[in-house]
Amino acid sequence: MTTAAAVHSADVALSHRAARVIPGGMYGHQAVRHLSPAYPQFFAGGEGALITDVDGREYVDLMCSWGPIVLGHRDPVVTAAARAQMDLGDCLDGPGPVLVDLAETMVDAIADADWILFGKNGTDATTACLTIARAHTSRSVILAARGVYHGAAPWCTPVPTGTLASDRAAMGYFDYNDVDDFDRAVQAAGPDLAGVLLTPFRHVEGEDQQLVDEDFARHVRQRCDDSDALLILDDVRCGFRLAYGGSWEALGVPVDLSAWSKAIANGYPLAAVTGREALRDTASTVFLTGSFWMNSTPMVAALATVRRLAEIDGVALMQRAGARLRAGIEAQAADCGLAIRYTGPDVMPYLTFAGDDDRSRMTCFAEAALAAGVYLHPKHNWFMSCAMDDSVVDRALRGTEIAFAAVRRHFGTP
Amino acid sequence: MTTAAAVHSADVALSHRAARVIPGGMYGHQAVRHLSPAYPQFFAGGEGALITDVDGREYVDLMCSWGPIVLGHRDPVVTAAARAQMDLGDCLDGPGPVLVDLAETMVDAIADADWILFGKNGTDATTACLTIARAHTSRSVILAARGVYHGAAPWCTPVPTGTLASDRAAMGYFDYNDVDDFDRAVQAAGPDLAGVLLTPFRHVEGEDQQLVDEDFARHVRQRCDDSDALLILDDVRCGFRLAYGGSWEALGVPVDLSAWSKAIANGYPLAAVTGREALRDTASTVFLTGSFWMNSTPMVAALATVRRLAEIDGVALMQRAGARLRAGIEAQAADCGLAIRYTGPDVMPYLTFAGDDDRSRMTCFAEAALAAGVYLHPKHNWFMSCAMDDSVVDRALRGTEIAFAAVRRHFGTP
Repeated sequence: MTTAAAVHSADVALSHRAARVIPGGMYGHQAVRHLSPAYPQFFAGGEGALITDVDGREYVDLMCSWGPIVLGHRDPVVTAAARAQMDLGDCLDGPGPVLVDLAETMVDAIADADWILFGKNGTDATTACLTIARAHTSRSVILAARGVYHGAAPWCTPVPTGTLASDRAAMGYFDYNDVDDFDRAVQAAGPDLAGVLLTPFRHVEGEDQQLVDEDFARHVRQRCDDSDALLILDDVRCGFRLAYGGSWEALGVPVDLSAWSKAIANGYPLAAVTGREALRDTASTVFLTGSFWMNSTPMVAALATVRRLAEIDGVALMQRAGARLRAGIEAQAADCGLAIRYTGPDVMPYLTFAGDDDRSRMTCFAEAALAAGVYLHPKHNWFMSCAMDDSVVDRALRGTEIAFAAVRRHFGTP
Repeated sequence: MTTAAAVHSADVALSHRAARVIPGGMYGHQAVRHLSPAYPQFFAGGEGALITDVDGREYVDLMCSWGPIVLGHRDPVVTAAARAQMDLGDCLDGPGPVLVDLAETMVDAIADADWILFGKNGTDATTACLTIARAHTSRSVILAARGVYHGAAPWCTPVPTGTLASDRAAMGYFDYNDVDDFDRAVQAAGPDLAGVLLTPFRHVEGEDQQLVDEDFARHVRQRCDDSDALLILDDVRCGFRLAYGGSWEALGVPVDLSAWSKAIANGYPLAAVTGREALRDTASTVFLTGSFWMNSTPMVAALATVRRLAEIDGVALMQRAGARLRAGIEAQAADCGLAIRYTGPDVMPYLTFAGDDDRSRMTCFAEAALAAGVYLHPKHNWFMSCAMDDSVVDRALRGTEIAFAAVRRHFGTP
């Protein structure tokens, strides 16, 4: 295998400079220091379904910036809207008219939304949901599924370094899709149960994905009703990709509060909380704010994104791309005699190899795909975008075919 | 006084629509529902030192979007940099080269910074400082000055609705500038003191501002050293307006960690944490992330902003504008025989009337200023920007002259 330095000279130079001024060289979920050194850390740009690293190498982008890119990089409609807003102003002494247009459009698009508030981070949205639930019920305990990501604040970060036990004092945990364990947690919370926080399906880094069991979802809804507790859907990662609107609308399981971010503005910094009518007055009494929460440019981008998703039936486009990718990958694995698991919805799939406990097969696969011009993550679900037409998916599949061949060459068949 | 409806028809129409989809009609610090109905809620745009509301009325903007606007609205240099970045990409699978350029530039500009991390909200930055301090010391207690704003997260929000006592379980409080009360709080924290969180001066909404007592600052530094606790400067509101670099550098009081946001990117969504060398390794072990934290456009805007502030000596320009405004306002008040207090640094002043316990004089003043084309806040400090040349300040002073006359007319002299 070639060394990173040989092929990534601009990236290596930037990484050396970064190491002097950034702790650990890079931070957060996009830091590549735990991945193969073949992974570039820095990117120069993107267009549609493609991204280019700082050494000029182009990839089919199966990560979509970890979710935000839903229409494609630099979607022309979204970009034009953002540029037009920048000609007027962005960060002013109050919101622009677009806040109302966007609020109406999203409340209209989301079945369980009677009102909306905007923030910047997914964590802003999930945290606000907890605060509103506690204010509304005058209770403390929030139940969440064990191991599931809800943000990076002290109450929810997956890395507890620097946080306190008191940050999670009122959190309770249960296993996703496990009715008995959920009931046990409800019992333990007793009369202090304020709400239940759930992702639309179980997407946990490094683990096979689990779709929600519909009976489990209905059971949670019923228990919340029985307890006068609130059901909060963390739709930050899935929202407006799994469905146009709420990710559980198709199940017919209504939710009380929802947290949104990622895809709603095609990469512009925006998050949102939506809720049902009964929570409107409470939501107005909670103090939620930030210096840039009223900025108009991200809201204009969101309005263009949501409208565009409706116009082109973006969810159907992504489902088509996702189904084509899944079919191709499953066929390639079978042709190579390699046993894989391809879990989660087609628009947010996750690939693992059977018996790959040390992830060596997946590491080999990801490195080979990268070298063949496909950017995917070995430990995190991928994302489809509307820019992935058949030719893009086929281009990705030409890369994964090479990657499967590499795995077979290095590891043989099981 | 005319009614809002008569003069603000577009604003009123938007507000009616907002009331249907936004709890309470608007949220956060820019909601005007607690101000005079004369205040517009919605703005159409801004340029330089001016903003325009949705009814086409132009104001000299003494609020600078509550701090972010430091060079002026739509500064051409910053806007050009942002547009050029948008032609490449913004939200990608990793940061762009600008992250390194910006990190180096800010670490170079800030005396106490050996490294930097970027987020989106001021609250992201202050929260990260606490987490890093706790991780570094393996202790819990953070001391903060009573009543001072450090963000809107449950541990610090000024409105505790929906938060829990446990959210502040490890917070202790003291009175700003009060050495004895501070020592009492240090004593109470005992060996569990992780850090002390302070703003560069005491800026609290609705209260006269207090500059920091230099002896107090030195005392806090000494006590932190004695206790192996960290001194955290919340420079979110003041940073890169009070000084180019850290707001306490002129005092010669070094700090261990600093939180930044507001002015660093002239209105683009960005926040930062900087720290000293000894904290670098700890900072690399804390998980800090968000979906848009690596976006390049706000970083390009920040790089242009910080460089431009250095090139034009922006702080000196703001100090000049602030001194001119202060001198003009103090002269106008004296001419009218009105007793005022004009507190805080010239670049972030706060005006109150003597004996105005029900704020009726200030309400009258703010309404009259607004009608005369000056946007200022009756209960929050104002902000100077580099776009406020002498002619802008004089234009603002023509409005405040009318406003003082209105106060005198309505209330007479004390």
